[in-house]
Amino acid sequence: MALEDAFDDFTRRDWAETTVDGTVRLAIVGIGGFARNRALPGIAAGEYCETTVLVTGSPDRARTIAEEFDVNHVIDYDAFRAGDHAETYDAVYVATPNATHGEYAIAAAEHGKHVLCEKPLETTVERAEEIVDTCRDNGVALMTAYRLQTEPVVRRTRELVQNGAIGTVVQVHGAFSHPLLEHTGPETWRLDPDLAGGGALVDLGVYPLNTTRYLLGCEPTAVYATTHSSGGPFAAVDEHVAFQLEFSTDATASCTASFDAHASSQLELVGTNGKIAIASPFGGVVPQDIVVESGEMRMEYTGPPVDEVREEFDYFGYCVLTDTDPEPDGADGVADLHAIEAAYESAETGRRIDLE
Amino acid sequence: MALEDAFDDFTRRDWAETTVDGTVRLAIVGIGGFARNRALPGIAAGEYCETTVLVTGSPDRARTIAEEFDVNHVIDYDAFRAGDHAETYDAVYVATPNATHGEYAIAAAEHGKHVLCEKPLETTVERAEEIVDTCRDNGVALMTAYRLQTEPVVRRTRELVQNGAIGTVVQVHGAFSHPLLEHTGPETWRLDPDLAGGGALVDLGVYPLNTTRYLLGCEPTAVYATTHSSGGPFAAVDEHVAFQLEFSTDATASCTASFDAHASSQLELVGTNGKIAIASPFGGVVPQDIVVESGEMRMEYTGPPVDEVREEFDYFGYCVLTDTDPEPDGADGVADLHAIEAAYESAETGRRIDLE
Repeated sequence: MALEDAFDDFTRRDWAETTVDGTVRLAIVGIGGFARNRALPGIAAGEYCETTVLVTGSPDRARTIAEEFDVNHVIDYDAFRAGDHAETYDAVYVATPNATHGEYAIAAAEHGKHVLCEKPLETTVERAEEIVDTCRDNGVALMTAYRLQTEPVVRRTRELVQNGAIGTVVQVHGAFSHPLLEHTGPETWRLDPDLAGGGALVDLGVYPLNTTRYLLGCEPTAVYATTHSSGGPFAAVDEHVAFQLEFSTDATASCTASFDAHASSQLELVGTNGKIAIASPFGGVVPQDIVVESGEMRMEYTGPPVDEVREEFDYFGYCVLTDTDPEPDGADGVADLHAIEAAYESAETGRRIDLE
Repeated sequence: MALEDAFDDFTRRDWAETTVDGTVRLAIVGIGGFARNRALPGIAAGEYCETTVLVTGSPDRARTIAEEFDVNHVIDYDAFRAGDHAETYDAVYVATPNATHGEYAIAAAEHGKHVLCEKPLETTVERAEEIVDTCRDNGVALMTAYRLQTEPVVRRTRELVQNGAIGTVVQVHGAFSHPLLEHTGPETWRLDPDLAGGGALVDLGVYPLNTTRYLLGCEPTAVYATTHSSGGPFAAVDEHVAFQLEFSTDATASCTASFDAHASSQLELVGTNGKIAIASPFGGVVPQDIVVESGEMRMEYTGPPVDEVREEFDYFGYCVLTDTDPEPDGADGVADLHAIEAAYESAETGRRIDLE
């Protein structure tokens, strides 16, 4: 493949192989900042989904947002579990704290609804597998909300890697940091290990973890991790994490994540015949600078800003409407939780932990 | 410090605090590719050193290069050990295979000559410490040839870090890869563990290792490493290495090096209030692109290409002429060997190894 081809029609939706009619009606479960600021606008801007129900612990406070996005029903969690207004939605988007993903995803599956569930899929492998099993048993689709897998710069990078543009990938570096307390109070559930399942690793580290697995198309065989916390609001979780993955191809990925550092993200892959560096791969709706070196060739490209949340919901909607298995499925979410559990075991023991 | 100040007079030699007369006369011990192509021209272009003796196993083959650089004497290793022409040089530059650094550095010290010794200082901590002890006992200067410490982009970065421009450093990523066999045959001593002391880690990984220690101004407390080799010419050494350092400040450095990958180098520091990324920090005489983010400020700067080999020899000459202790001294070289030995032990055992 010529490098130029990768950048031609950069934002193409290569996953949309057919035209489809209709939309998937969504109940959004958990109306936190991300749901309000990114998901609802992204769904509204997209083609294949529409929001028909909001599920929240404080229905009264959600009326304004329901009006803004023309959503007919606002219900609480008990009503959701009881199946209220179930006839008005086809699928759910679960955006509650991680430890409650299972509860709502499983309730939805038992109502016969398809599930798009935020990452990490749950707080343990065991609970995540319950989601997978229940969705399978009820014949509904399950997608883990790895929106990066629908981001054009990541999809184009995967094509380049799979087409051998940089040879065999040898080493990956991935980093994602974010000053959490500038955006949320210290009481956030993200700093409560019971609700979050961990700290920077599960909230931010999962981005380079999942994206590297996706780009390499293979699984890690071992993981090593170091965690640090300065105490205070971060006392109960990993404020900073550095983890190293080994892959079956002998590639390694050196990844870091931090809850308490300058906002930054970076992904770089070095192969036997080239490299690809993406600036701000995990950073939201920003121009995507990508540098590709392939043998003697070097190309720089700045992709247009793309709302990967819109892409994600359209991809999910397309999958449901066409009965296509989503690529970031439940097993994808479970695989990351295997790596995360092993990483915490490694940080605890100071040993490389093998993944099976 | 305002960011602009860091980029003002970027290539200034902040180490040159006084004017000095004269030059240091050098014997170059080991006339390999680096000595011929980088050291001899760098010394000739600089101010404070001149080459007066070449020491080589094949004096006849070095006559042409001696003529080209106006060097009066070419002697073999036996003659060097015997002290031939010792009155014509003040210091030596040792650029032989790593396992012979000690032999020639110690001989030079015993002749009363100052020593600039290539990195790694030797192949083991024990042998490196012999060099340090002998130089101390003979009252001669010892500098480990970490030329990056004289490279303006690295010195300006250290100033920024020390002045708090990015807050407390939390995470470092460093990478250096190079397709060795495109530049040398498979018979190179760099692939012989007895002569080199290791593979990609000692030859390339030492760059991000030493540079990170230099920039942070503190020592690693633990190391973890993974090595891989595909066999063939790389069978006896680490063809690829990924290592993670923990520092006393709780910062981590995630570093990689490879003998068999696309030529690439990268260094990135993320702190609590900013980040610094240097493109191609270890890549020779190339423009030095540096991006600094400090709070809401962002600056990009491309430093002019600087021959850091010339800088290194001028720094060494200046130190000798002014009786200044070189900053990259013998202890600096020993510290890296401690980390390297621990990294290999970690790769062997799959455990984090504490450094004392």
